[in-house]
Amino acid sequence: MSTPGRDDAAVPDLLGVLSYGALVAFDNLGADARLAPDLRRRAALSEMAAAELVHYRRLADRLTELGVDPVDAMTPFVDSLDAYHESTRPRDWLEGLVKAYIGDGIADDFYREVAAGLAEPDRTLVLEVLHDDRYAEFAVAEVLAAVDADPKLADRLGLWARRLVGEAVTQAQLVVAARPALVTLVEPFVPDGPDGLAALIERLTASHAERLSSLGLRS
Amino acid sequence: MSTPGRDDAAVPDLLGVLSYGALVAFDNLGADARLAPDLRRRAALSEMAAAELVHYRRLADRLTELGVDPVDAMTPFVDSLDAYHESTRPRDWLEGLVKAYIGDGIADDFYREVAAGLAEPDRTLVLEVLHDDRYAEFAVAEVLAAVDADPKLADRLGLWARRLVGEAVTQAQLVVAARPALVTLVEPFVPDGPDGLAALIERLTASHAERLSSLGLRS
Repeated sequence: MSTPGRDDAAVPDLLGVLSYGALVAFDNLGADARLAPDLRRRAALSEMAAAELVHYRRLADRLTELGVDPVDAMTPFVDSLDAYHESTRPRDWLEGLVKAYIGDGIADDFYREVAAGLAEPDRTLVLEVLHDDRYAEFAVAEVLAAVDADPKLADRLGLWARRLVGEAVTQAQLVVAARPALVTLVEPFVPDGPDGLAALIERLTASHAERLSSLGLRS
Repeated sequence: MSTPGRDDAAVPDLLGVLSYGALVAFDNLGADARLAPDLRRRAALSEMAAAELVHYRRLADRLTELGVDPVDAMTPFVDSLDAYHESTRPRDWLEGLVKAYIGDGIADDFYREVAAGLAEPDRTLVLEVLHDDRYAEFAVAEVLAAVDADPKLADRLGLWARRLVGEAVTQAQLVVAARPALVTLVEPFVPDGPDGLAALIERLTASHAERLSSLGLRS
């Protein structure tokens, strides 16, 4: 097993949480596919689920290359990611789409900021395993069409989106508490100390509000 | 839309049933992955599930190339494949492995015989979308180890395997009744008429018995 240098200590943690995230996204998109109203949508969502496993394989291969067992790297994150998903099980097709679009969107924004500070090849790897834009376009088109057909849906789905963010923040705090090394990955991008962190959160919040608005939901 | 010649009339049916089979296998392996006793096995099975979607994509692309909408090609087979899977929901991890190994094994043997009579590129395509040997090896190792640890399991899993075959035969008869053109794909390989068909069934039965025996189960 190679010994990561001090600066790289958090890389296996980062790849581990991304790996488990990909496995879980595969599960969830697969379950969402079974809620699809027709075979065409089911096939489309199943393909997006399968793409997550391609990401998983790339992350797991990189972990192995670093001398880290992918299962060991994922294990610290299983409880908090599972808790988030258990507490936010979509009840129908639209809730599943909103959850994946909103939740993945925030996660991707965050990992994109983190990637900027990584050395290669991890920087490119992390950027390449972010979620496919195809999914976002698909989710937006589906939700917009549904809200257009039944404007009352906007309230229910808006409430759902707020609940998702609340649960995600709770679990993210637990992840960071359990793996403080992960914070060191973000630190280089908060050059002004607490103000920089506030700016990061502001950027994430602004993008989140844009996504809500593109779904026709209020933030 | 291209007009398939008389001899090719059954090709879209064949690619359609294979496409829907791949989508369903993706679903089932994904559900089996959630029954896995640990994260390592869950990841392994999730990867095998994702491989089914790669097969699905190749089959759907070929259907599109032939001027056939993949959803239209799959639709005639949805009810019978769903009925088979509804009536054979695995209750645990081992039942899921036995089902996939036994069921996919019979299906693969059958499609391999059918492929021999197809023109290219469909012949190679059908052979390439058969199930991965990795899965068979994984399932055999898991079931053998479990039966070794608890020999009483052999009776329950043997009974399960017999039920699977009974349900599969019932549904295969319904598929053929609904899409008689599919039979023309097999006919060239039963040169002796009914005797040839008997020989085909005998070959499939012999391979099935070998698979059961490799799992340590009686046929």
